[in-house]
Amino acid sequence: MYEISTFYPQKIIDKGDSMATLIQEKVRQAVSILAEQDIDLWLIFVRETSVNSDPILPVIYGEATLTRQSALLIHRSGETIAIVGRIDAETTRLIGAYQTIIPCDGGISQNLLSELQRLNPAKIAINTSLSNVMADGLSYGMYQLLLKMLADTPYGKRLCSAEDIIAALNGRKTATEIDLIKAAIAETLDIYQHTYKFMNPGMTEKDVADFMHKQIADRNLLAAWTYEGCPAVNSGPDSPVGHAAPTDIQLEPGHLVHFDFGVQKDGYCSDIQRMVYLLRTEESEAPVEVLQGFDLVRQAIEAAREVLRPGVTGLEVDQAARKVIVDAGYPEYHYATGHQLGKRAHDGGGILGPQWEVYGDLPNQMIEKDQVYTIELGIALEGYGYIGLEEDVLVTEDGNVYLGEPQTQLVLK
Amino acid sequence: MYEISTFYPQKIIDKGDSMATLIQEKVRQAVSILAEQDIDLWLIFVRETSVNSDPILPVIYGEATLTRQSALLIHRSGETIAIVGRIDAETTRLIGAYQTIIPCDGGISQNLLSELQRLNPAKIAINTSLSNVMADGLSYGMYQLLLKMLADTPYGKRLCSAEDIIAALNGRKTATEIDLIKAAIAETLDIYQHTYKFMNPGMTEKDVADFMHKQIADRNLLAAWTYEGCPAVNSGPDSPVGHAAPTDIQLEPGHLVHFDFGVQKDGYCSDIQRMVYLLRTEESEAPVEVLQGFDLVRQAIEAAREVLRPGVTGLEVDQAARKVIVDAGYPEYHYATGHQLGKRAHDGGGILGPQWEVYGDLPNQMIEKDQVYTIELGIALEGYGYIGLEEDVLVTEDGNVYLGEPQTQLVLK
Repeated sequence: MYEISTFYPQKIIDKGDSMATLIQEKVRQAVSILAEQDIDLWLIFVRETSVNSDPILPVIYGEATLTRQSALLIHRSGETIAIVGRIDAETTRLIGAYQTIIPCDGGISQNLLSELQRLNPAKIAINTSLSNVMADGLSYGMYQLLLKMLADTPYGKRLCSAEDIIAALNGRKTATEIDLIKAAIAETLDIYQHTYKFMNPGMTEKDVADFMHKQIADRNLLAAWTYEGCPAVNSGPDSPVGHAAPTDIQLEPGHLVHFDFGVQKDGYCSDIQRMVYLLRTEESEAPVEVLQGFDLVRQAIEAAREVLRPGVTGLEVDQAARKVIVDAGYPEYHYATGHQLGKRAHDGGGILGPQWEVYGDLPNQMIEKDQVYTIELGIALEGYGYIGLEEDVLVTEDGNVYLGEPQTQLVLK
Repeated sequence: MYEISTFYPQKIIDKGDSMATLIQEKVRQAVSILAEQDIDLWLIFVRETSVNSDPILPVIYGEATLTRQSALLIHRSGETIAIVGRIDAETTRLIGAYQTIIPCDGGISQNLLSELQRLNPAKIAINTSLSNVMADGLSYGMYQLLLKMLADTPYGKRLCSAEDIIAALNGRKTATEIDLIKAAIAETLDIYQHTYKFMNPGMTEKDVADFMHKQIADRNLLAAWTYEGCPAVNSGPDSPVGHAAPTDIQLEPGHLVHFDFGVQKDGYCSDIQRMVYLLRTEESEAPVEVLQGFDLVRQAIEAAREVLRPGVTGLEVDQAARKVIVDAGYPEYHYATGHQLGKRAHDGGGILGPQWEVYGDLPNQMIEKDQVYTIELGIALEGYGYIGLEEDVLVTEDGNVYLGEPQTQLVLK
């Protein structure tokens, strides 16, 4: 192959422009965020993104790669400019999110400088951040190149971080994005229904996971996270919950079976935990302690939902849910109560989490309308297994709504 | 999913440790390169590589992701240290390339500092480069974090670029890597043989490409570059050669059919162009001008091979091949005569290319033993189509060898 491989324009056409529509929507959203944050220009500066990409690029340019040095300029006035290699110009045109496309054969510095001179921005945001990996796409080498290009201009001194732009843009889902997440959730819940019918005592965790993997493949979906651990399947008290792939442990009557599973459909993810109880021969209902444990987890999820609304912090939401578990005498869970959901199962930005060092400033960020969060927590029930539930919710103007039917009763098999 | 997803240790075990063996081999090779380049320590500093990875990480850590802030330290003495989140420690242990694994629960700065104090390196290479994207994996935010960690120490002033380490490490293939590339080439040549049998006049370029895509899937391989353009199939004089996916153009008697195709097998790629001539009813041999064109392209490839050996530059190789084409009266081709091949079809580092601005310094780099290059070029033959060939060769001590049987005669159908 005699040129550096890039994305074929056909791909966008084949997908009926829905991908392009979404990118256009996100770029328009970025414009409004610039005005809100009083930043004149957002400058995305990349090269050979097939080798080293910028994590925000899929949101504002899509799956296509940019072969040579390229700059995307989004101005608060609504003007959008793409300075790209000639080889990528047609793809950029088809994406339709950039009004002006400047194809370059050599370097881009002259074109970039003349656009900056024309726009004369007072603040230029670039993709660098100490704490938010989604907003830290600019490499140190590219930063140095940019400073070189801007030497002898006033613009080098006008650079600032785009981390707040990226947190807002990635966090606030558009109507199209919410529909895509809903579609991923619907597939997930449907796969769960098929799995409940399929699973039976005597099968191993791996057998059940294989069935779910086949469902993913048959529906042309992808796993929402690392394939080996998506789904997680934990049957009974001896199954290692957490970072482990499904094992050869057999499903047995009297086991709680815990699932953690999500799919990626059309670029957007779901992330949902579900619970099944395997009845013993003499049982027609789960034991009372199992039902109580399930209800406690349900209550804690609803306690989080009571608090979750624009203007509160993720920390407050976490505390509400955590308190329910701890007050009932269970040890507190060693993870956050929720994270954002979108193009990735863990979509970055603020979390519904405790003030632990490892989470840095993420639990203190303000919840905003149109963000999508998971709410997830659990307890270990001695003799039966782990009870964990996870639901996906959308933050509304004054609260939140489920994006899929929540599990309110144990599934019995 | 309640923790940031990482790689499941099982994956390495399932692959029979061959992946781990390869990573161990590359890390040992890195140690010898440090001694050769008189650099004491190579420091790879990353975080959440599932969101924003470092392009060299697959070579020295594999496909696994590093969840939290992590530092890999490779010392010229042969000592190797991985300071990683506790969640990733087991995976790191299974990779087996790092003798000391330091699991961290919070930040890594204290552990990193104490290792630096113990080793007291005079030169510390970090992944930053103005020109080599493979060597520019450190983000600007992470660079600033590193400087913060090293404040009040002498180490901040001892940082240098790892670009020469990375160019050498990625360029010089180990015996295991060469075997893997050979295996990818063997699959490719076999798929070509099946394709020659399958293809017939009346089919479209897309039909032929679909057949090859099915071969890729049936053999559990991946396309070596963007799926839509791998293979490229060009039939006859009207097919757009270059960056275009196969079209609805029909194969016809009297067409030259040009292929550009490669596969990825076990993480390594092939990249090979092949030529078929479709005989007209009355023909039992290709027309003389077609045979002459094919021979010219063959000659140019052999002219490049004559020059290609350790110690020459890629520019010299390019000139030798280009001269054959231009001397025969054809316009010179608008791309480089070759690029390196490995984990990626375009594997970075020096190229066999002309001194054009867009290639920067890449044509002037010295050829080294154990590098793998493509040699590829072509001419447009009026009335028949494009004649392009591409072979993959390994640089030896005093020359180079083909890694797969070259095409020395037109395939006739």
